Amino acid sequence: MKVLITAGGTSEKIDEVRAITNHSSGQLGNSLAECFLARGHEVTYIMTPFAKHPEKQTNLTLLLIETTKNLEDALKQQLQQCLFDAVIHSMAVSDFTTETALTEQRLIEGLVQQLSKHRSLLHDNLTEIIAQSIETIAKQVQIDKKIHSDTDRLVLFLKKNPKLIAMIRQLQPCAVFVGFKLLVDVSKEELIQVGLTTLEKNQCDFVLANDLTMIQGEQHQGFLIDKNKHVQIAQTKQEIAKLIVKNVEEKWRENEK
Amino acid sequence: MKVLITAGGTSEKIDEVRAITNHSSGQLGNSLAECFLARGHEVTYIMTPFAKHPEKQTNLTLLLIETTKNLEDALKQQLQQCLFDAVIHSMAVSDFTTETALTEQRLIEGLVQQLSKHRSLLHDNLTEIIAQSIETIAKQVQIDKKIHSDTDRLVLFLKKNPKLIAMIRQLQPCAVFVGFKLLVDVSKEELIQVGLTTLEKNQCDFVLANDLTMIQGEQHQGFLIDKNKHVQIAQTKQEIAKLIVKNVEEKWRENEK
Repeated sequence: MKVLITAGGTSEKIDEVRAITNHSSGQLGNSLAECFLARGHEVTYIMTPFAKHPEKQTNLTLLLIETTKNLEDALKQQLQQCLFDAVIHSMAVSDFTTETALTEQRLIEGLVQQLSKHRSLLHDNLTEIIAQSIETIAKQVQIDKKIHSDTDRLVLFLKKNPKLIAMIRQLQPCAVFVGFKLLVDVSKEELIQVGLTTLEKNQCDFVLANDLTMIQGEQHQGFLIDKNKHVQIAQTKQEIAKLIVKNVEEKWRENEK
Repeated sequence: MKVLITAGGTSEKIDEVRAITNHSSGQLGNSLAECFLARGHEVTYIMTPFAKHPEKQTNLTLLLIETTKNLEDALKQQLQQCLFDAVIHSMAVSDFTTETALTEQRLIEGLVQQLSKHRSLLHDNLTEIIAQSIETIAKQVQIDKKIHSDTDRLVLFLKKNPKLIAMIRQLQPCAVFVGFKLLVDVSKEELIQVGLTTLEKNQCDFVLANDLTMIQGEQHQGFLIDKNKHVQIAQTKQEIAKLIVKNVEEKWRENEK
């Protein structure tokens, strides 16, 4: 099989020295890659700088990316050029990217400037006026190269990134596709329900749903959900990796028939 | 000599899965530690998770920290308990920590709620009203465990961290103390001037002033400034490390006399 795996966590620049990062050690992605390689499959591994990854070897291609935009470019390039038998998207991708960063002072000045344009602030359209003011400030202010630290409070506006998971099925209609969903401190029922929604929305074959509070070192509870709402449980990263590889191989053989 | 080195970059949580990080590979800190160790000195190395560090060996103590608060605790503990001959503070420390994170919607609602309290928004106290409103919102809103990604714009309020560099001289009046100052794309004159201000404000013996645009891989231009405004230049990380070690040793011998 030809397998594409994404692993690690993207980061988005705030300025030249600061960034917003999504924590992910890439340990699970690494375990997955090693499992696939050990079973003779060919792996393309898209990773972020500090993600764990297998040693260089035949059958393994490592691609390094940092930002969500980098990931988008790398995914497009790979998925448009090659036909993959499976895509495992385990990378934690930033939902937001920095739109602007400004001092509290500049935000206040901006709001005063915007609001002063209105001779009388009628209470019934105050929401609209403020919404427009915020929009204008967020879009207009240029980020400094390095934000000066001589302000007591800093305000960051972040805007939503496109959901990259959504384009995978579009570009690889036939690959076995495994998505990931990480939540924090929810019930098992909610976790599985949200996982199922992710699966349906993105046309995954499987989604591995997990909860941060159930991850500690090698201990890592995960629920592998399929289209038929069948749920399989694993308790460690190694078990999750084996479970995914097994199910992907089975699904792939099924598709080949 | 007993030397304390800080290296890497701190990170500040936004929620359970996201953080604001200060980029720093710890390569220079690593070169410094290796130089000091090679010359028979004893090194305590306070580092962040992904910072480069020397291999474990006699004479080397590694201490791992993540946040600015962790660094504060570690520095206090070390500097209050031990007498160091030199302190080299090369870590990139977050100037800001997350105060609150809220959706654009909640910011607008908050502002409307605050502004609606004022029957008439007289233009001459609008600044004060808005400043108070922002303050109230920044302080009141609780951060979610994991920020939901179903909002188009997210607003983060960051508040200033205490400047840890300021407490080093206070706790170690006799140590040779080297501070670092990183700027982005300024003139050599401005860089040296700002470096000198850092030196005087924090009672450093030396400050290594550098500009991000002059750093690429091993190439790393640095200006080592002393109290007498004498400036020494180095062009690589290795050169910077050697220059600092040489100057620290000389200063230490001078102090011993």
